[in-house]
Amino acid sequence: MFTSILAAYDGSKGAYAALEKAAELAKLTGADMTVLTCYRHHSMLEASLSMVRGASETDRNLDNVMRQVSREAAEEAKTRARELGVDKVTAFIKNGPSARTIVGFAAEHGCDLIVLGSRGLGSSEGYLLGSVSHKVTSLTDMPVLVV
Amino acid sequence: MFTSILAAYDGSKGAYAALEKAAELAKLTGADMTVLTCYRHHSMLEASLSMVRGASETDRNLDNVMRQVSREAAEEAKTRARELGVDKVTAFIKNGPSARTIVGFAAEHGCDLIVLGSRGLGSSEGYLLGSVSHKVTSLTDMPVLVV
Repeated sequence: MFTSILAAYDGSKGAYAALEKAAELAKLTGADMTVLTCYRHHSMLEASLSMVRGASETDRNLDNVMRQVSREAAEEAKTRARELGVDKVTAFIKNGPSARTIVGFAAEHGCDLIVLGSRGLGSSEGYLLGSVSHKVTSLTDMPVLVV
Repeated sequence: MFTSILAAYDGSKGAYAALEKAAELAKLTGADMTVLTCYRHHSMLEASLSMVRGASETDRNLDNVMRQVSREAAEEAKTRARELGVDKVTAFIKNGPSARTIVGFAAEHGCDLIVLGSRGLGSSEGYLLGSVSHKVTSLTDMPVLVV
């Protein structure tokens, strides 16, 4: 019923639970699995605060750190999916705002299910603040499993 | 991986697509399936507009119509699930606000997955307006599949 499952993974506890469900579903359906970890460049975040200053060496170093941390998270997720018995699993990292990046990536890669963690607040707080899972379900017509 | 799947069904096109995915998943996992159709009493809606007037006979008749329409939708969904090969499927109707009623029912009945249709707007409109699927994911820690 699913052929290509995208698991969004940011290293959080909720994302880990989502990753495990995604892996179970991939095994059950024989679907390929793709892990995507999104991150923002530190210099991009800085730029939104200061219109004048160019990217300093410190900023660039922080960008590298962000990228490295994301890569490690994505690889960790891939390893866990393999441990859970998923044969075909690949991992990507991508710089950009989480919800739009996840939805765009899923469409480009022909996925037919997005799996991601909720913030798990279990209250109206999540509703009022808005979460990545909420944005993702709003931005796509693809089935989305929020774990 | 799932043992008891709740499919929320309101008779809409999106809900029908969700019902079919729920049935596929139930077949695949061997889970029981429960269909839930929520509705509001007409007299309740009226009462929110007028604090004085009691429920008239017309209101009560309209309540009966709402209940009847919901029952037919739930039975239609149950029949469709059976056609799709799900053995154990039951249908319920319940009066109340959709999201809270769905989440409460799923918890009471020991479900471990809620499946429901998105409004499928695929734009920021859904995000701004807020949808039942958004409220449901905010109100529960249970996995939710938005189709």
